[in-house]
Amino acid sequence: MKSSPTARKREVQEMLKVLGEKIYYQIENGVFPEIEMPSRSVKNIVYDEKLKQYVVGKNRVKRSSKNIKHLRPFTQTIWLAFFVDKLIREGKTSTLRDVYYSAQAFGIEFKDQAESDEIITDLEALLGRAREDYNVYPEERSAIYGDITIEYTTPGHEGKRLNLASHPDGYLIGPSLSTAELVETSAKMVFAVEKGGLFTRFVENKVHEKYNALIVDTAGQPPRSTRYFLRRLNQELGLPVYVLTDADPYGMHIYMVIASGSANAAHLTELTVPTAKWLGVTATDIETYRLPYVRLTDEDIKRAYELKNDPRYRDERFQRELDVFLRKQKKAELEAFAKYSLDYIVDKYLPDKLKEVKEL
Amino acid sequence: MKSSPTARKREVQEMLKVLGEKIYYQIENGVFPEIEMPSRSVKNIVYDEKLKQYVVGKNRVKRSSKNIKHLRPFTQTIWLAFFVDKLIREGKTSTLRDVYYSAQAFGIEFKDQAESDEIITDLEALLGRAREDYNVYPEERSAIYGDITIEYTTPGHEGKRLNLASHPDGYLIGPSLSTAELVETSAKMVFAVEKGGLFTRFVENKVHEKYNALIVDTAGQPPRSTRYFLRRLNQELGLPVYVLTDADPYGMHIYMVIASGSANAAHLTELTVPTAKWLGVTATDIETYRLPYVRLTDEDIKRAYELKNDPRYRDERFQRELDVFLRKQKKAELEAFAKYSLDYIVDKYLPDKLKEVKEL
Repeated sequence: MKSSPTARKREVQEMLKVLGEKIYYQIENGVFPEIEMPSRSVKNIVYDEKLKQYVVGKNRVKRSSKNIKHLRPFTQTIWLAFFVDKLIREGKTSTLRDVYYSAQAFGIEFKDQAESDEIITDLEALLGRAREDYNVYPEERSAIYGDITIEYTTPGHEGKRLNLASHPDGYLIGPSLSTAELVETSAKMVFAVEKGGLFTRFVENKVHEKYNALIVDTAGQPPRSTRYFLRRLNQELGLPVYVLTDADPYGMHIYMVIASGSANAAHLTELTVPTAKWLGVTATDIETYRLPYVRLTDEDIKRAYELKNDPRYRDERFQRELDVFLRKQKKAELEAFAKYSLDYIVDKYLPDKLKEVKEL
Repeated sequence: MKSSPTARKREVQEMLKVLGEKIYYQIENGVFPEIEMPSRSVKNIVYDEKLKQYVVGKNRVKRSSKNIKHLRPFTQTIWLAFFVDKLIREGKTSTLRDVYYSAQAFGIEFKDQAESDEIITDLEALLGRAREDYNVYPEERSAIYGDITIEYTTPGHEGKRLNLASHPDGYLIGPSLSTAELVETSAKMVFAVEKGGLFTRFVENKVHEKYNALIVDTAGQPPRSTRYFLRRLNQELGLPVYVLTDADPYGMHIYMVIASGSANAAHLTELTVPTAKWLGVTATDIETYRLPYVRLTDEDIKRAYELKNDPRYRDERFQRELDVFLRKQKKAELEAFAKYSLDYIVDKYLPDKLKEVKEL
């Protein structure tokens, strides 16, 4: 992850070339071509205590063109390798959905987008690289604001620089920003917030200046390209990441996916920020700050019990907060602090919690 | 709508001042204070054939502090007038949700956000101005890209200029962009597209250069601030607006709300672009371009019948397209053109349809 986006794309292209050569070599030698990759089956997904995230185990699977059952996914995977190589060469990006439809231009069949998404994930496992490295992005995008200068690697914009404090509504974290070089920043930390409303509040109240911070709107559970970008800010610039969510089990889990990843992406270890800290809003905060609340729904309660048994939540603090949720049966939103004033969350809550989390 | 955002805010503040003075005057003269506004009841919402949009009729409603039933909404409305005046003076914005929680800081009760949203709409009707004019925004935001230079009026950024072709992922249309002055542009038209994926495709394929166009991602049914911004581009700069949506009844309706507004916002006539044109994807296009399709769902069919009876759809072209949807029972997505190639929609479909629509 330390390597630059441009270098990473070059590495992916090299890997794709090797993959292609291997197929040709097998054919030329009269062997049915086959590929091998880590198994992503549930049995092979294990929680790594040291990395504090899910990883794939040692089992590997083969896909051989000799096996009639393998032939379809084998062909789809090889086509995808060809297609993304073309994307990189042409400096284009594609959405997950575009991939599904594009296959038809080449006579490759996917019965639905779920099937093409599956093959895209297979290629990630095969190469050990995130699809962002081969130009496939989701639709959803979130935003960033603050004093950081980036330099585009996007065709037509190569070498152009932009400071992300210049547009107060924030900069979309799309393909161009995801792949930009991070040139310099005065920032000392990153705040990742769950909602656009709070993001705007933070910008208006100058959190970026008061805390020398970058502010990221995750727009709910962040799209993977945003997790990828948060990791880059953390790893390449050494910035600590603090996460602010609504006080409910789903909010907690937004933090947890940023910090410890998801089982779905267990085959990639480069999407997490293991040192990210959850500032809140915690279940305890609802009591401490006497926040307006609503009752947990049955679904919230079910989710809280699930999380209690999730290995990512073994830490005592998370267990305690889940217990408070279940005992008090209350949830609250980030906007609830407006009960005191629009400035309260920035001027009072934020410094309180930063202090608390640093003492953990 | 021709006046600048800064001038509009000053006008709103003047209106709020007059409202406050009226209340004081009534109290000082021993009269129970009351306010009057256009009725937003269904009976008073009529379709204006000339404006081609819903408008409120002539009925007006009174809210008197003498009437025990009126006292609650009367107090809420007056508080809101005070609160948004404070927002404007302090150069802050608020989300709809923030307003709900902020009320508690002042001892004003709303039983839920639906109730505060209702009062926010009442204030719009009372002033005849959109809530964007008094700094209340939704959470959702969409994006724009292209050669247009804007000048911020946002506190801390006043007078700073930005060219919106500098960030290829697009610029969020949030409070700062919504209220920026539109300084200059080389653009000759605006393409409003329903999806982030297509937005990125358009930027990558240089639609902004090939067509001298601004590209707007409406992110589904556009948030009102985006409709407001599209109208500004149309009215202040004289740019024609072309809308591209998925080929289904819901997609058509994205176009229709941009062009003709919604019954919900009948009390505001300044959110529409009456001259906006729907490029497609039409029901007929699914056949013409042999697009991959899926069957209409029962819900789609129900929606199509509703639209057939909607006065905004009286135009022959819309009736015909709704009939094709119902007869063929097919829908398709914008991404479906990738069946031919990723460039097809830009290089072939777009010029075809621009020609077709100009001949209408």
